[in-house]
Amino acid sequence: MTQSVFFFGNGKAEGTREMKKILGGKGANLAEMTNLGVPVPQGFTIAAGECVAYLKDGKYSDRLRAEVEGNVARLEEATGKKFGDPKNPLLVSVRSGASVSMPGMMETILNLGLNDRTAVGLAAQSKSPRFAYDSYRRFIQMYADVVLGVSSADFEHLLKARRMTTGASTDADLNEDTLRNIVEEYKALVRNKTRAEFPTNPVVQLWGAIEAVWKSWMLKKACDYRKVNNIPEDLGTGVNIQAMVFGNLGDDSGTGVAFTRDPSTGEKKFYGEFLVNAQGEDVVAGIRTPLHIDEMAQRLPNAYTELMTTQDLLEKHFAEMQDLEFTVERGKLFLLQTRTGKRTAAAAVQIARDMVREGLIDRTEAVKRVPPADLDQLLHPIIDPSVRARPLCLGLPASPGAASGVAVFDPDSAVDRASSGEAVILVREETTPEDFHGIVASRAVLTARGGMTSHAAVVARGMGKCAIVGCKDIEVDIQHRRFSVNGTVLTEGEWLTLDGATGRVFAGHLPTIPSEVVQVTNGTLAASAAPLYQSYSELLDWADDLRRLKVRANADTPRDARIARNFGAEGIGLCRTEHMFFEGERITAMREMIVARDEGGRRRALAKLLPMQRADFEGIFEAMNGFPVTIRLLDPPLHEFLPHGGEESKLLARTLGMPRDELNRIVEGLRETNPMLGHRGCRLGITFPEITEMQGRAIFEAAVRAMRRGIDVHPEIMVPLVSTVAEFENQRAILQNAADQVLGVMGENVSYMIGTMIELPRAALTAGEIARSAEFFSFGTNDLTQTTYGLSRDDAGRFLPSYVEKGIFPDDPFQVLDAAGVGRLIRIAVEDGRQVRPKIKLGICGEHGGEARSIAFCHDIGLDYVSCSPFRVPIARLAAAHAAINAS
Amino acid sequence: MTQSVFFFGNGKAEGTREMKKILGGKGANLAEMTNLGVPVPQGFTIAAGECVAYLKDGKYSDRLRAEVEGNVARLEEATGKKFGDPKNPLLVSVRSGASVSMPGMMETILNLGLNDRTAVGLAAQSKSPRFAYDSYRRFIQMYADVVLGVSSADFEHLLKARRMTTGASTDADLNEDTLRNIVEEYKALVRNKTRAEFPTNPVVQLWGAIEAVWKSWMLKKACDYRKVNNIPEDLGTGVNIQAMVFGNLGDDSGTGVAFTRDPSTGEKKFYGEFLVNAQGEDVVAGIRTPLHIDEMAQRLPNAYTELMTTQDLLEKHFAEMQDLEFTVERGKLFLLQTRTGKRTAAAAVQIARDMVREGLIDRTEAVKRVPPADLDQLLHPIIDPSVRARPLCLGLPASPGAASGVAVFDPDSAVDRASSGEAVILVREETTPEDFHGIVASRAVLTARGGMTSHAAVVARGMGKCAIVGCKDIEVDIQHRRFSVNGTVLTEGEWLTLDGATGRVFAGHLPTIPSEVVQVTNGTLAASAAPLYQSYSELLDWADDLRRLKVRANADTPRDARIARNFGAEGIGLCRTEHMFFEGERITAMREMIVARDEGGRRRALAKLLPMQRADFEGIFEAMNGFPVTIRLLDPPLHEFLPHGGEESKLLARTLGMPRDELNRIVEGLRETNPMLGHRGCRLGITFPEITEMQGRAIFEAAVRAMRRGIDVHPEIMVPLVSTVAEFENQRAILQNAADQVLGVMGENVSYMIGTMIELPRAALTAGEIARSAEFFSFGTNDLTQTTYGLSRDDAGRFLPSYVEKGIFPDDPFQVLDAAGVGRLIRIAVEDGRQVRPKIKLGICGEHGGEARSIAFCHDIGLDYVSCSPFRVPIARLAAAHAAINAS
Repeated sequence: MTQSVFFFGNGKAEGTREMKKILGGKGANLAEMTNLGVPVPQGFTIAAGECVAYLKDGKYSDRLRAEVEGNVARLEEATGKKFGDPKNPLLVSVRSGASVSMPGMMETILNLGLNDRTAVGLAAQSKSPRFAYDSYRRFIQMYADVVLGVSSADFEHLLKARRMTTGASTDADLNEDTLRNIVEEYKALVRNKTRAEFPTNPVVQLWGAIEAVWKSWMLKKACDYRKVNNIPEDLGTGVNIQAMVFGNLGDDSGTGVAFTRDPSTGEKKFYGEFLVNAQGEDVVAGIRTPLHIDEMAQRLPNAYTELMTTQDLLEKHFAEMQDLEFTVERGKLFLLQTRTGKRTAAAAVQIARDMVREGLIDRTEAVKRVPPADLDQLLHPIIDPSVRARPLCLGLPASPGAASGVAVFDPDSAVDRASSGEAVILVREETTPEDFHGIVASRAVLTARGGMTSHAAVVARGMGKCAIVGCKDIEVDIQHRRFSVNGTVLTEGEWLTLDGATGRVFAGHLPTIPSEVVQVTNGTLAASAAPLYQSYSELLDWADDLRRLKVRANADTPRDARIARNFGAEGIGLCRTEHMFFEGERITAMREMIVARDEGGRRRALAKLLPMQRADFEGIFEAMNGFPVTIRLLDPPLHEFLPHGGEESKLLARTLGMPRDELNRIVEGLRETNPMLGHRGCRLGITFPEITEMQGRAIFEAAVRAMRRGIDVHPEIMVPLVSTVAEFENQRAILQNAADQVLGVMGENVSYMIGTMIELPRAALTAGEIARSAEFFSFGTNDLTQTTYGLSRDDAGRFLPSYVEKGIFPDDPFQVLDAAGVGRLIRIAVEDGRQVRPKIKLGICGEHGGEARSIAFCHDIGLDYVSCSPFRVPIARLAAAHAAINAS
Repeated sequence: MTQSVFFFGNGKAEGTREMKKILGGKGANLAEMTNLGVPVPQGFTIAAGECVAYLKDGKYSDRLRAEVEGNVARLEEATGKKFGDPKNPLLVSVRSGASVSMPGMMETILNLGLNDRTAVGLAAQSKSPRFAYDSYRRFIQMYADVVLGVSSADFEHLLKARRMTTGASTDADLNEDTLRNIVEEYKALVRNKTRAEFPTNPVVQLWGAIEAVWKSWMLKKACDYRKVNNIPEDLGTGVNIQAMVFGNLGDDSGTGVAFTRDPSTGEKKFYGEFLVNAQGEDVVAGIRTPLHIDEMAQRLPNAYTELMTTQDLLEKHFAEMQDLEFTVERGKLFLLQTRTGKRTAAAAVQIARDMVREGLIDRTEAVKRVPPADLDQLLHPIIDPSVRARPLCLGLPASPGAASGVAVFDPDSAVDRASSGEAVILVREETTPEDFHGIVASRAVLTARGGMTSHAAVVARGMGKCAIVGCKDIEVDIQHRRFSVNGTVLTEGEWLTLDGATGRVFAGHLPTIPSEVVQVTNGTLAASAAPLYQSYSELLDWADDLRRLKVRANADTPRDARIARNFGAEGIGLCRTEHMFFEGERITAMREMIVARDEGGRRRALAKLLPMQRADFEGIFEAMNGFPVTIRLLDPPLHEFLPHGGEESKLLARTLGMPRDELNRIVEGLRETNPMLGHRGCRLGITFPEITEMQGRAIFEAAVRAMRRGIDVHPEIMVPLVSTVAEFENQRAILQNAADQVLGVMGENVSYMIGTMIELPRAALTAGEIARSAEFFSFGTNDLTQTTYGLSRDDAGRFLPSYVEKGIFPDDPFQVLDAAGVGRLIRIAVEDGRQVRPKIKLGICGEHGGEARSIAFCHDIGLDYVSCSPFRVPIARLAAAHAAINAS
């Protein structure tokens, strides 16, 4: 027979912290503390397995009844109190506690054991009848609500009536007699509602409470929480029964919460709050302002000394920052809970680094301690948390950081206002590549449509710029240059503040705090003046020692390339050449190329673009000196580069000396039903070989120029949207020809590679054929996810969130790589590709390259590198280390 | 040492028809005819392997030289003539002949052996010096062009000059002396151009010709032809050297071509044409009108008798209709070639059936003899071939058949004019589901955009209606209700004729011939009065006995279902429920549902749609009595059902009592960037469960009603666009609930299945999971091809044709299933699905279900059925039989 109930008390516990799966987190730590000699109210824990059995059978076993009642007897003996003893009654708390933390999701009952007789005893013992009857009425209310199904609101109603008849302004003003009356009224309410007396027998009360805790595992909110957090349904919860201790028995009593280090900064300094003569819930409720923990030294000196010793003991024992709950009953300290403390990213980094220095943990453990995604917090400014404001509405938190600026509604206005020094936020229905210069000029982007990987989201994240997208409540009225949201109207020029980390949109200008790490990375702050940066940097160095995956960045300009290097990128995994064509006169030359009537016209326009593109490439090679640079050929449908009517169209027609009718016809003719699946990627280069030829020339000419300046260049040219090896070979031939011509004429030798993006299912399925001529694969998981799911990122915003919510998708597949479907395609391509070309270079350059779980997948299947936006490089470095640690 | 040269002559040949791979088709058949005792000009064949060796080494071996020259000696002995003999010169033809027919792609040289001395001999022998010198100058011209690289145009130039100086109007007017002069001028031209004398030695001439034939294997046109027709590069061509025979030696000579049966109708009647005193090329050139073969009995009676015996012998011997070339030299018949004759589909069917009756072939062979795709010809009307007209332009032949009608430019006009009895052709930029009623009302559809599987193409094909799509030269001017094409403008109401089989568009009203098979199938013609139908029907019965795959049809209405049954469909593989919503008041109710503000509004609109849909289902069940009917839930994005501005929008707003602004906002809000990858398929049913619920109710209520009328119903409900099992399970639960409710209330039991369409890569990749709850899979290869390739059918029209042309895609993947990519996904799904659910029912319902090569793939991987449009059911039945025969 396995043991189901585990006692702790008298300095010894039957459980340990290793038994979390059996006892739940709270029970395991209560046992551990008891064994450590930490003062913990005595009690016992019922194993979570009994919850599972109860929910299955609808009843508990006789064996369990006997075991629990045996432990009640042990508790009575240990405390010297007895259930139902009118002189010295045993009162207990009954609390849930699963092996995975589910804060606030399940039930708790306090003061159990009270009845008419024991209340008298409590009054005598506490020397406060008021306290005793207040506890009693609270117990009835809580128990009736949780166990008997009588709504708490009904009790509050009676309480309010009594306050009114007695003229009391708060519950604290109710005197002993009133409270006695209230207890009677409460019992009568229970009698009427349940057609039974409120149970007076503490053992009956206890079983009612235990069953209620078990049942609360199935409360809707708990089920939902588990679904969202991927917690298995069949864990069940433990039940912790402990002798009550009271922090509200006078000025020598109190209660508090504390962290062993500062959870905000990570500073090694005991940090907490407490209240004298109060119960735990008073600290949380915020009715009284708690005191700083340092004051406890004066108010409760003995307990304070013991608390300091205890917190030090617990932190050293768990080798982790602890979050403590304690109560002081008549001068005596009791620990009610200890657990790993939640912390900001800054604190996580600081604590991990410090604990290595203190010898508590090793470097590997330190690296494991920091969740990679949290590093994001260190890179983006945040809204000053001291400011309180009500958000206008909530959108998808597409790119973190905080930003304030005046609302603008088109990219040109953004540029205009920004160039005159204004901070602007671009507000759009949704953005397109045409908005690029507007996004560059803006502090942040806000869109009414689109998902986490919509154009606005991707571009903003790539720039480390705050973005909130898919903010459904917003109605953009471009004509009147304003937007309305839940009744509020904001016009162009009005201030707006976005919190990209949470998706909150505020009216007005809220102050923000800049990120120290970014300042140092950008060179605007000395590392020596930035302790957080130093810790962050040291931690990432440790991570670099542990990881196998290389980390590259997606960067399209020399500036982004430099930022990426500063963040530690070991090359560029994706340089999107089209972004180079949206600036200034480039877009005009690009448009000229697109609307040209024949190849000759296209070649003339391309000749104008070549030097611009070559200069960009040279700058990028320079920034990435010694590291590989993967350059993708032109990818988007040409329609994206064209103006869509209006002034811009008129202007273009004039610039090109082309009748507007003809221009409009060309623009209209390039419109596609499904541009994502249209004339783009290598299909452009096959239809218009001169585009590929120009890009090839620009790359090789830039490479030679950079080489002659002593720069070590490693271009890797990437053909996009290949679905069959024949497409690839067509483009490779053009590129090799360009290489032969340029290098031949210039008399130089550049080592380069030509490979392809695997971003269509067919490319993955025929990777064996493609690998015969492609020297590298880069998995373009954005498009691969779109085509594998048949799901457009631009349109999915409308139903994807509800899909994740309903649990149809466990995660947004554009954020977390779908291992079962998309991942299976990647595996096929990796296996077939390596079969044909064992040394083929393999990487990933979709958004997933910066997401921790996806990076772990990339590590597991043996890719060579991941590539992500510059601002996610630190996350990827850390995640790659995590993946290596977890796999070993 | 293997033999490289194979002699035929004196009634015996070293080769046989089995040696096609070695000798090429022509050489093998010349050998076979010789062995049969058929009179063939004597000669020898050089094996194709020598061509391969020559192209590899750049020279031929001494061994081969000896072997060829030995055979020249044999030929001299057999003919009694000698190379270079001024009295009795041996003249030969040198012809190519590969194992796979490549008509007109390689070189031929005639009259080889002529020089100044042998020309004299030929003149004496033929008693026609003019004939001899005309032959000589032709030989120089042909040889110089093919072997020496002197352009034929230069010779034509000299010829023309001589015609002018002598006043001759045609070459035939040039006399002997002039021709002698021309020969001298020709030789001088060769001397000047090649700086060498024209070779006089016949052996030198021969080797020059042989090398030229070998080299012609690598001519660009030959390489292109092989690429397009998937002919391997390394076959090489045989070279046939034969003694010349002349049909132009007087009125006892002649030449002709003939078929052993009528290639147009298949009638067993010798059919051919001939010319007296002429060479083979004169028949082809069409300068003289040839005579009917029957007249040969009078003109060349002995040769005619021998020809009749020979053709009968050859047809019996080859057990196949033969295409013959013959020459009569001074009364003596020579066969120059025999090969399998090309024929129309009608003839193919008729001949195959007849040959079984005649005991020449068995039923399996007869089934193999008819190419499945050719059956299409039997089902669609064709333009009367006797009418000559010049097409306006050429589009993609999307759906065969011929149709005339007046041009209309919108669906409503189509309906209006059609209802007043006019034949109309709908001309559109491209069509959408909204055009459905217009397509129904039209005789044919013509679009300027879209590919072979665009909306217009698929819908028209499904209806067996003529369609030409992607006709790029057309500019549709909807505003002025006209279109222009290459300078011609056609306005609404003007007549137009389309030939859907070739993609030709004609102005005016050309007469068409109706299809006999369709008339019988529709019941408008008695089978007894339709001999072609009888043969067709018998052949398909034989095919049915041979095939394993079931054949179903894609049909959306009771009418289509009945047609499908008449064509032999064994169930419906795809009933698209959305097509039911485009007619009359249905579209209004549908729109009301879409723009409803809440679930209640949607439910009210759905309640109106339910009885309409139920009635359709009942009719379909009735038509398919005893056979399964697969019904797909609503699939297209809702936006497709809405009006796009204009009058219709105004009308709808009035009908629904909704402000136009609000309606426009809703329509605009439903617009998607990539609707193909948007909010459609099961995503609709998940967002709006009430739609699925209504469709489920309609299906089950219809099933019960039909059952009560004694109809045997087998509904198979198909959930579209599933990417994960969770989506499927969500929809299945709603459907099962509808089933329980309807069947419970009505107290009936219907056996039904719930399965899914596998049309997204992820569905295929996770088929193992999906098969746990899906009872059948139907591969939706249209969408699966789109997503696997990342290629939109609607947009691919612009570059897909050039892709196929450039050989980047061997075939249009929307027409022929891509086995390497899409097929690999299907294999994965079949294997994983069967692993989990061994008896899972598997079918295909994309356009590929009616294409022969794709059907063979489906057979090979073990699907249970294919489903295609009703008019392709006969093709699929035959193709399934072919697949079974080829696999066994």
